[in-house]
Amino acid sequence: MEKVKIIEVGPRDGLQNIDSFVPTDKKIQIIKRLAACGIKEMQIGSFVAPQAIPQFKDIVEVVKAVNALRDVVLSVLVPNIRGAENAASSGIRKFIFFFSVSHAHNCCNVRQTPEESIEELKQICRAYLCDSGITLQVALATAFGCPFEGNIKTDAVLRAVDKVAACGVKEITLCDTVGFGNPKMVEEKFSASQKHFPEISFGAHFHNTRGLALANTLRAYDIGIRSFDAAAGGLGGCPYAPKSSGNASTEETAFLFEEMGIKTGINLKKLLGVCQFLQETLPQVKIASSLFQAGLPQKHKFVADNKRGK
Amino acid sequence: MEKVKIIEVGPRDGLQNIDSFVPTDKKIQIIKRLAACGIKEMQIGSFVAPQAIPQFKDIVEVVKAVNALRDVVLSVLVPNIRGAENAASSGIRKFIFFFSVSHAHNCCNVRQTPEESIEELKQICRAYLCDSGITLQVALATAFGCPFEGNIKTDAVLRAVDKVAACGVKEITLCDTVGFGNPKMVEEKFSASQKHFPEISFGAHFHNTRGLALANTLRAYDIGIRSFDAAAGGLGGCPYAPKSSGNASTEETAFLFEEMGIKTGINLKKLLGVCQFLQETLPQVKIASSLFQAGLPQKHKFVADNKRGK
Repeated sequence: MEKVKIIEVGPRDGLQNIDSFVPTDKKIQIIKRLAACGIKEMQIGSFVAPQAIPQFKDIVEVVKAVNALRDVVLSVLVPNIRGAENAASSGIRKFIFFFSVSHAHNCCNVRQTPEESIEELKQICRAYLCDSGITLQVALATAFGCPFEGNIKTDAVLRAVDKVAACGVKEITLCDTVGFGNPKMVEEKFSASQKHFPEISFGAHFHNTRGLALANTLRAYDIGIRSFDAAAGGLGGCPYAPKSSGNASTEETAFLFEEMGIKTGINLKKLLGVCQFLQETLPQVKIASSLFQAGLPQKHKFVADNKRGK
Repeated sequence: MEKVKIIEVGPRDGLQNIDSFVPTDKKIQIIKRLAACGIKEMQIGSFVAPQAIPQFKDIVEVVKAVNALRDVVLSVLVPNIRGAENAASSGIRKFIFFFSVSHAHNCCNVRQTPEESIEELKQICRAYLCDSGITLQVALATAFGCPFEGNIKTDAVLRAVDKVAACGVKEITLCDTVGFGNPKMVEEKFSASQKHFPEISFGAHFHNTRGLALANTLRAYDIGIRSFDAAAGGLGGCPYAPKSSGNASTEETAFLFEEMGIKTGINLKKLLGVCQFLQETLPQVKIASSLFQAGLPQKHKFVADNKRGK
């Protein structure tokens, strides 16, 4: 039976785009409710400096409250070695480190050149990669295009993958951070990456900025990708397109696969309930995914009297 | 060079879902502005009884005002022989006839059994198909699922196609009227249809009810479909999912293809301007397509000062 892994990134990539602080107990409820839908892996926040992203100033409390959840791998974003140290102390066992393929975007986003980010990654790998308990995944931002540099060549992606792979990392996610990706590009970049780095497990992270998230997801699946980031309710966004849609929504991503007979492990009815909870809990965002608005397909009762003259 | 035909159905499928009457001059403006975007074919309304769909009570005036437009094939929906007669008198040269593969949906929607609809189609074909100037396209509704009957088997679609083909019709559109389709289903139903009826030119009509319109579009393209219905702004809807998205949006469908290097002939910048006009002209609807919200990809100016310490 075919199956895919959907990594829920809403509590991290979704909430980091919300300016107002989401109370700790709400975050914990969101994470627990998402886990109860059968989600197998979830990014629950970031170990960043609170002055950089105040939304995650309560990350230690959040981890403490949810770290005992079973049947779900919990991960956190660590932007540097200090973040990794704090994450490790909290008891989290999976880290996400990210940097941008594009020089300009990395400089804007994390105020480092990509080369400096790689040095940071090496430190984290030296400290934690041999520690049997910790897994490290690297997310390559702007792999499909950059708001400053435009098109990002496949060669540039391959060079970045090469540097990450050389650090010993086994899981790499190619991210369409700003919604520039299209299915042709997805095929080119993932096919080349898989061909040159067969030892790496690649994941996809798409945004629905211009409506193509699920078409990109389908194409990535076609060529063998089996790990997809998504955010419940399509939370998230793009600072370079302020009114834009956010991440591929978990509910539509799961619906796409489940309808095709590809298992996700996710209970869609429960997940739409969580979307409703998100809408009530986060009134500052609009849960706009089409599936959430329409609901799951239903059979209606056919009233035969509608038949003309019969 | 690869290319596809996008058939704009907003003035027909979009407006028919709007309860309040859209003034004739607004309709005419919408059609003219859409044509100016490079759209090659457009469904501009329906020759239905005004008491059935009051929105199209002005169809004769609309046709009169736009029939001289060049470089765009204009078509109208004709539900029966009377509609076809009126359409022919108006000077329109392409008719769309539709019925549902599902018995229950056809009875509800047009108050006929599918067999009765086929008889109606035969009358229209006898009257107009040998007339050299008129083209007839048939749209098969609920080809991917029915709100009453649920799943629609591929065999049922093939039987319907067979009956239509036997009438001499050369263009048949398979419609996901209520958003039940998924890429696997799209592949099955279109592949079987193309295999059994190689003489027919098949088109696809997807709704974005549950977010899958572009994934379905991509899969249909993959297996050789080159004609796609879409509505500017994603207008349209589904009476069985009241808050749902409408048709695949023309702008996102064109964006998907153009970004992959597949020509549509559509000027996307102009089309987004028409979406803005639609939003202002039709305040009763919300133009929700992600591309309209986000705008086309842009390069922003990189401010190097953002680089830490440099």
